[in-house]
Amino acid sequence: MMAHDIAALKVRLAGIRLEENPAIVRQRSRDFFWYSPTLKRQLEHITADLIAFATSEEDVVRILSECFALGIPVTPRGAGTGNYGQAMPLAGGVVLDLSGLDKVLEIAPGWVRAQAGAIIADIETACRPSGQELRLHPSTYRTASIGGFIAGGSGGVGSITWGGLRDLGNIIRLRVVTMEASPRILDLTGEDVARVAHAYGTNGIITEVEMPLAPAYDWIEAIIGFDDFAEAAAYANALGEQDAILKKLLAVIAAPIPQDYFLRHRKYLPLGKHVALVMVASIALDAFTAFTARYAGETLFRSDLIAPEDAKGLPPLYELSWNHTTLRALRVDPGITYLQVLYPFPTQLDLVARIHAELGDEVPAHLEFVRFDGKITCFGLPLIRFTTEQRLDEIVAIHEQMGAPIFNPHRYTLEEGGMKQTDAVQLAFKREADPAGLLNPGKMIAWEQPDFDFDTGRTYLFPGLQGSN
Amino acid sequence: MMAHDIAALKVRLAGIRLEENPAIVRQRSRDFFWYSPTLKRQLEHITADLIAFATSEEDVVRILSECFALGIPVTPRGAGTGNYGQAMPLAGGVVLDLSGLDKVLEIAPGWVRAQAGAIIADIETACRPSGQELRLHPSTYRTASIGGFIAGGSGGVGSITWGGLRDLGNIIRLRVVTMEASPRILDLTGEDVARVAHAYGTNGIITEVEMPLAPAYDWIEAIIGFDDFAEAAAYANALGEQDAILKKLLAVIAAPIPQDYFLRHRKYLPLGKHVALVMVASIALDAFTAFTARYAGETLFRSDLIAPEDAKGLPPLYELSWNHTTLRALRVDPGITYLQVLYPFPTQLDLVARIHAELGDEVPAHLEFVRFDGKITCFGLPLIRFTTEQRLDEIVAIHEQMGAPIFNPHRYTLEEGGMKQTDAVQLAFKREADPAGLLNPGKMIAWEQPDFDFDTGRTYLFPGLQGSN
Repeated sequence: MMAHDIAALKVRLAGIRLEENPAIVRQRSRDFFWYSPTLKRQLEHITADLIAFATSEEDVVRILSECFALGIPVTPRGAGTGNYGQAMPLAGGVVLDLSGLDKVLEIAPGWVRAQAGAIIADIETACRPSGQELRLHPSTYRTASIGGFIAGGSGGVGSITWGGLRDLGNIIRLRVVTMEASPRILDLTGEDVARVAHAYGTNGIITEVEMPLAPAYDWIEAIIGFDDFAEAAAYANALGEQDAILKKLLAVIAAPIPQDYFLRHRKYLPLGKHVALVMVASIALDAFTAFTARYAGETLFRSDLIAPEDAKGLPPLYELSWNHTTLRALRVDPGITYLQVLYPFPTQLDLVARIHAELGDEVPAHLEFVRFDGKITCFGLPLIRFTTEQRLDEIVAIHEQMGAPIFNPHRYTLEEGGMKQTDAVQLAFKREADPAGLLNPGKMIAWEQPDFDFDTGRTYLFPGLQGSN
Repeated sequence: MMAHDIAALKVRLAGIRLEENPAIVRQRSRDFFWYSPTLKRQLEHITADLIAFATSEEDVVRILSECFALGIPVTPRGAGTGNYGQAMPLAGGVVLDLSGLDKVLEIAPGWVRAQAGAIIADIETACRPSGQELRLHPSTYRTASIGGFIAGGSGGVGSITWGGLRDLGNIIRLRVVTMEASPRILDLTGEDVARVAHAYGTNGIITEVEMPLAPAYDWIEAIIGFDDFAEAAAYANALGEQDAILKKLLAVIAAPIPQDYFLRHRKYLPLGKHVALVMVASIALDAFTAFTARYAGETLFRSDLIAPEDAKGLPPLYELSWNHTTLRALRVDPGITYLQVLYPFPTQLDLVARIHAELGDEVPAHLEFVRFDGKITCFGLPLIRFTTEQRLDEIVAIHEQMGAPIFNPHRYTLEEGGMKQTDAVQLAFKREADPAGLLNPGKMIAWEQPDFDFDTGRTYLFPGLQGSN
């Protein structure tokens, strides 16, 4: 790894809070990459030279300008709740910690404006008096920053109603600082949002966001049990298609995941039951109950029906869902990892059934139902009883051969974790906004190795990591 | 028609406002049935013996009880804005006018409780201070009652987001009075709502409703122009599938309908342009504009961009849509009528194109995009340049042969205007709630003639009407 002139940088950044303590620097150079045994092996040693803490947009401009002058890479970080090393500085240099940009700036009917480092839960606390909340949040609601969610996430709780962050309209405006001698500040709206959303901070630093708000309904949590996994999936798919029953979460988790890993809910989870996790608006409760009866779903848990003393100590239902399902499994069994699967409409239920029949024991199913291009379908975040990286790759290949695209969470690049192709819009914007290629190096293959052939199935390896692998 | 003992009834109803003036009785015995030349011929002569005005649930109970005792039919009426004779008393007797039950009783986050005769616009005026509005309303928003909409309507403005009234969750609760010696008052929720929703008041009188509320966004009206009808339809379908762009109305209307009939918007409507009518939330404007550019749609009109003096005199955009499209055409050309078509997902665009190619000049296209069972598809309310009833039936048959089910607006029965089959739930409830068959006679074939064979294609004729046809 190239040595960076950190001493010179420190002089230039006088007045900005910096951190050099190796233990703290290492801790602030990591995220939840260790969900993946592959990434754990590849990225375990990664650390920045220095953490720089910004508390204002002016700080960000100054840090980027000085790092540009010295040719020092900068990797932005919110709360570090990503799972693919999004915020890990593969080429060392500076980690730009944005957690100090934590202000909620303005709340209006239908939207909120906040600094990028604001914690999602704090934004919602600020919005609640107006009867509003964010459309989408990750299961790391209580710890994740809004900027990190936008730069490194794709959807989550709320996607059953609102689709994903990639959908036009789920991000109103992003304010971005470029990595140049004189950094520019750009406001991106409409199509231009896609330039930097889910780009891992490789082509600009998000400092401020404007997000749409939805009404903050009184959400009821329900766990519905089924003896048959396919019945649970069919129920959830059909409930997803109920346009008038307002939902915020709709997941299906195959036994024995709930019984083995949802420890604090265990008394509600009979052995062998496959479960649907549902967050439904209280105004839809009668309709939801009637609909559940059509499918003979068994209500195992309802947050509005348990005694207050039983409610105490239970995590919110969304903390059993999305990547928290994986986290709860990992806490019990460190040998677990996971996958991210798309089961495309309209054959999603058939595909789920066929893959479950083929791999169900080794790859216990976890489905998250979402709106995707106007239809209801499901993503999978199945658990994997990990054996070897080779077998992991085989499992990925089996899914893709059967027709289920994988968003591989065992890769640290945008392309391999995503659509396995160059994002021309993000690449073009990187040429403009980060001409020296100093932002979060190693994450955009199209920039690092423009002739990389995605069709070979070969894994990209950032040169800066080669020495250590 | 059987003679009813109106004199005895008047004595029994002392203290309740009654109306016998034949001109007024006739006017209150009609709706917009004259949109259909067939219904106009069949129902033109229909009139009640007496109008009874209820101003409370107690009045309703008393009127039903006394009419039951005397064997006098009762046909309920809200504001009389239906199109199929829903509120027309085919067997004479009493029209029960519910417009005096007009109170908005309670507004809470997510729902409103109102009396059945409350005008939809008045409910929304009452809800607006809380930042809320109804999910769905007909284009007769300013005149229709909420009870009439539920008893005789199916969806409308808002259906692009919320589906139809038939969807579980779009009606929370209905309060109904039965037609018995001692009328019972029932509260129906969940599955039971379907017993009386869209039953034309044939099996109970709705006196109170509880409806879900949505946030009252600042809705921007847009008219987007296309040179090609198929392009307009493809744009609207794809915009419908944009889960994050909040919409309230999404219609496509083929030239020359807009130019010929939307008189007050004419200066925005160049000759030959097929148009999409869109109501979109202001928070989604950037996304909407970006999306429209993808389809090279031409913005002909935007309510937020015109001068206040130009806005004056323009009807709201929803009064160019749904059945107001038909109404505007009828005002210019009394020779126009219409149809109600479903273009089923997923082949809706192909079906629209094929039917438009076959019938486009005689049946100018009008599409209303909606969510239907979780997918985006479109209903059609095409205009018809009417010649004969025989040709009208041929046009219906052509649609059905090509794969587009018709909800025939030229029939006054529930079944023929709907799914062409017995609704077992509504029939069973009629047996229970109207054992003497006195509510809105002639509208439910399954009650009047249980062995009627829908497969013959024969039109049902209520015996009470035979003498006059």
